[in-house]
Amino acid sequence: MARFAMAAANPGATPGSSFIDEILRANAEFAEGETARGLPGPAGYRGAIVLCMDARIDPIQVLGLPPGTAHIIRNAGGRMAEALRSIAISQQMMGTREVAVVHHTECGMTTFTSDSLRLRLREELGADASTIDFLAFNDLAESVREDVRIYRASAIVRQDIPVRGFIYDIRTGRLHEVTS
Amino acid sequence: MARFAMAAANPGATPGSSFIDEILRANAEFAEGETARGLPGPAGYRGAIVLCMDARIDPIQVLGLPPGTAHIIRNAGGRMAEALRSIAISQQMMGTREVAVVHHTECGMTTFTSDSLRLRLREELGADASTIDFLAFNDLAESVREDVRIYRASAIVRQDIPVRGFIYDIRTGRLHEVTS
Repeated sequence: MARFAMAAANPGATPGSSFIDEILRANAEFAEGETARGLPGPAGYRGAIVLCMDARIDPIQVLGLPPGTAHIIRNAGGRMAEALRSIAISQQMMGTREVAVVHHTECGMTTFTSDSLRLRLREELGADASTIDFLAFNDLAESVREDVRIYRASAIVRQDIPVRGFIYDIRTGRLHEVTS
Repeated sequence: MARFAMAAANPGATPGSSFIDEILRANAEFAEGETARGLPGPAGYRGAIVLCMDARIDPIQVLGLPPGTAHIIRNAGGRMAEALRSIAISQQMMGTREVAVVHHTECGMTTFTSDSLRLRLREELGADASTIDFLAFNDLAESVREDVRIYRASAIVRQDIPVRGFIYDIRTGRLHEVTS
């Protein structure tokens, strides 16, 4: 790894409560274990999944994803507009042939509007975010349908494959398909 | 869930080899299990992590992330330019106070260029992607440094918190910090 001109992370060197330092300690344990070895090569890519960054959702567990099968694209809300670049790469370079978009109950994206966040950013950071759409929403099923429509309107992604939308119920752990 | 006007996903109804159908069957098993219950509420958010959509990486396992602590933002390459909206929301709405950006060895983003992908999209889909930067890269450490710089140049994210960059070695499972 020397050619990357970087320092090996030394999780023991920085005691304290830093979250990233805790991650580094956890990663050092992971790297010592069996799971870190024998990772699959780039084969068997089947689908791309777009979902929210929410800290309570572990998509690999929730969706039972075998390693090496799905590209997982996550952003605030699980919004398609910000996922098209990644999906185009997933399809053209890695050959995925299905897309799922998943929004979820109790999502933070329903608790604010672009305008309220812009105001907050001006107050907190003095930032002008007037040109940024923060992609908040308040109707979960409609936001899923909108994201399927955004996919279907894009020229850079395949239109000859299944694209399906879901709501994940964070209380029951269950996916519900959104019909158009 | 009736108010969402959606059909309950019925994983038993569609036999066959569809990837999404397989996910639905796995999710039904997950929802029956103990893990799906008692998910933590929105408390304890500590950091936001930006990393690649790569199908071989399970960040929750690799980074030992306790549920409810980290927003996980994933896109092709783990690029910061496409993560700033999500990080602003993470910080302002959920109070995260650290940021890590993680690129990884053997990344597909090093196997093409924006130009080569644009050509392919024109050939395969007849798409004009001339205005899209696909954010490919060929120097891992430099792409991490670039993404830290992009964060530091943004007005909509906090500049009074730690922002650290890493390379994840997919062979060893270990994070290596990228020094500036």
